[in-house]
Amino acid sequence: MELIPAVARALEELRRQRPLIHHITNFVTMTDCANATLAIGASPTMTNAVEEVAEMAAAARALVLNLGTLQAWTLEAMLAAGKSAAAHGVPIVFDPVGAGGTTFRTQAALRLLDELPMAVIRGNASEITCLAAHKSGQDFGVDSRLGPADPALASSLASHLGTTVAITGAVDVLSDGCQTAEIRNGCPLLTYVTGTGCMTTSLIASFAAVADPFTAAAGGILAMGIGGELALAGEGKNGPGTFHARLFDAFYQLNDAILQKYGKVVVHRE
Amino acid sequence: MELIPAVARALEELRRQRPLIHHITNFVTMTDCANATLAIGASPTMTNAVEEVAEMAAAARALVLNLGTLQAWTLEAMLAAGKSAAAHGVPIVFDPVGAGGTTFRTQAALRLLDELPMAVIRGNASEITCLAAHKSGQDFGVDSRLGPADPALASSLASHLGTTVAITGAVDVLSDGCQTAEIRNGCPLLTYVTGTGCMTTSLIASFAAVADPFTAAAGGILAMGIGGELALAGEGKNGPGTFHARLFDAFYQLNDAILQKYGKVVVHRE
Amino acid sequence: MELIPAVARALEELRRQRPLIHHITNFVTMTDCANATLAIGASPTMTNAVEEVAEMAAAARALVLNLGTLQAWTLEAMLAAGKSAAAHGVPIVFDPVGAGGTTFRTQAALRLLDELPMAVIRGNASEITCLAAHKSGQDFGVDSRLGPADPALASSLASHLGTTVAITGAVDVLSDGCQTAEIRNGCPLLTYVTGTGCMTTSLIASFAAVADPFTAAAGGILAMGIGGELALAGEGKNGPGTFHARLFDAFYQLNDAILQKYGKVVVHRE
Repeated sequence: MELIPAVARALEELRRQRPLIHHITNFVTMTDCANATLAIGASPTMTNAVEEVAEMAAAARALVLNLGTLQAWTLEAMLAAGKSAAAHGVPIVFDPVGAGGTTFRTQAALRLLDELPMAVIRGNASEITCLAAHKSGQDFGVDSRLGPADPALASSLASHLGTTVAITGAVDVLSDGCQTAEIRNGCPLLTYVTGTGCMTTSLIASFAAVADPFTAAAGGILAMGIGGELALAGEGKNGPGTFHARLFDAFYQLNDAILQKYGKVVVHRE
Repeated sequence: MELIPAVARALEELRRQRPLIHHITNFVTMTDCANATLAIGASPTMTNAVEEVAEMAAAARALVLNLGTLQAWTLEAMLAAGKSAAAHGVPIVFDPVGAGGTTFRTQAALRLLDELPMAVIRGNASEITCLAAHKSGQDFGVDSRLGPADPALASSLASHLGTTVAITGAVDVLSDGCQTAEIRNGCPLLTYVTGTGCMTTSLIASFAAVADPFTAAAGGILAMGIGGELALAGEGKNGPGTFHARLFDAFYQLNDAILQKYGKVVVHRE
Repeated sequence: MELIPAVARALEELRRQRPLIHHITNFVTMTDCANATLAIGASPTMTNAVEEVAEMAAAARALVLNLGTLQAWTLEAMLAAGKSAAAHGVPIVFDPVGAGGTTFRTQAALRLLDELPMAVIRGNASEITCLAAHKSGQDFGVDSRLGPADPALASSLASHLGTTVAITGAVDVLSDGCQTAEIRNGCPLLTYVTGTGCMTTSLIASFAAVADPFTAAAGGILAMGIGGELALAGEGKNGPGTFHARLFDAFYQLNDAILQKYGKVVVHRE
């Protein structure tokens, strides 16, 4: 199926099912991630006690692991939840916030990658490349500040990481190693609201409950990019506070017609 | 006194006194709970260190204990704060988020119930019934997905739990075992914003600083339900982001005339 | 240079540089502090694990230490980050939330003051006076509920604390012991939104990355006060929820012309 119709079908399905999306995530964007998950049509839980995360992850339809405000104890909770998710066939969507930024954070990301099967990894070019470099011993020479990742790099990183990668930036690129897509939605005001990356990960996980990882990654990225455009077209142009509120309105309003009208996707199949 | 005039009088009183409401609550909805408390006219503190919660609870006019994102250390803080509140006559409003959802959470809820005198317990039908079933050894056969609790059930649960219960859902029901009320305010968009349950608990606690538990529970539920209706009637109809912001506007604007005009309350006295 | 032109120049510079502002802050207002930092034009990180804060603080351009929701472990993280910041010449902006409110909190604030060089301390009159009284052994006889601090008191507190102090309230006063300013911007609705004090601290830190402590304190206070006035002049008058969103719009829109038009500053030089 074409990518946009596949995303539209997944969106309809997730609204019908309202799947439970378990997050172990950071304290900065936790509320926004819960609200993004609700607005797109799924059901969030942010339970993070090591005593109960395995039980909760087993009952969920997707699991988000997000490294922002990482602590030693949240890492343990992520490992416990991730192993339970893996054992129960629950897809894991990983957001390696700040990988490469500090030693603690890079090592935690690599440990999670080693011990857990990730369905999708979403990050900026610098974070994803850091992980792929450590896994493969290869230097990809990419810096997120230098511009967007290109499709060939995304495909290479996906192959080295053995999963679907979603690299978000001025242009978003995603790849599962076999198929690669560029998505050119979004707007600069998205960089003036904290958590738009984290929320994209939560949206991807919402789609991952009902679709394959590549479609899910495209769905989450399209929801955020088109959401930003719709928010900016309305009252959101007033500034980042109003824009932020209008983003959730846009996730809620997203549908097949809007995806078809606004989605700017190019797919490359190898 | 009739229930709505009693709520209106309590609202006026809480705005005059700006009572300090101490919360030990979850990390997802903490900010929204603080803002709801401020918007209705009270003063929040979210202090949660075990080293200081007893001192803070003694200085507060009501204490919220909310189990979302429960941790072993937050449970200890809740016990310390709750014992101090009890010793100083500070009413405790308990929100057993997710009771019945995991073993850890159910046991924590039951331990708090055993050790602390709760003025009000607010939850959905599934959470409240889970607690009453464990306390009484009786199976109430209720599932929150099956629809709202009815007044007879609310009264029975209040008796079994020995406190005022507020069961929120499509219809809200509250009872102290002697008097029972149904409140039919609210709108479906409330279920697309995280923390509307937690905020209702904070609103109840704000009222509990100046009113009896039954009036307080009615006040918090009416504030949220009417708030949702007012938010929806304005810009909030645009979607859950704008609606969320407008909810706080509505709490702030709530007054006697609005309570009289919009409140849909039926009281049963046994 | 006059104070408002100095603030305007610093604002332009911070937007050009987008400096990294490291926060170890509370869980209630963390998201709002990150969004305020972004909206004014800087770049926030809220990393708080003791394993990585020294590394992060060394890479930052300013460090915020905020005592709200203090824990023993966040205190350790603050000390580690603060020592690293001091060693690398990174200015520290301290927000002693609730100092004087509980013993735990007062002692933590005093320990941080003893061990770390603070560039700016921002709090209400009660918090700042509590710290100065403990440091100097002198009773200043001030209670934040009695009204705003006056310039003479601010100057005295700055001298006793050996740093720039920013005392916010109905009127804001700042002093570095040599120069003192009163700022009369703002509006009462700011007291109905949680975290406006914490956000002011984050805004001060954003300015402190590119300006001296006195100019930075003035910049943060002006941004919040004028922001409140602009938010109130627009849709924000609807209530604290809409007002809250509009605050971020106002930080984003703040510029030289707005500072000149709205800023109400009186500077006293000794």
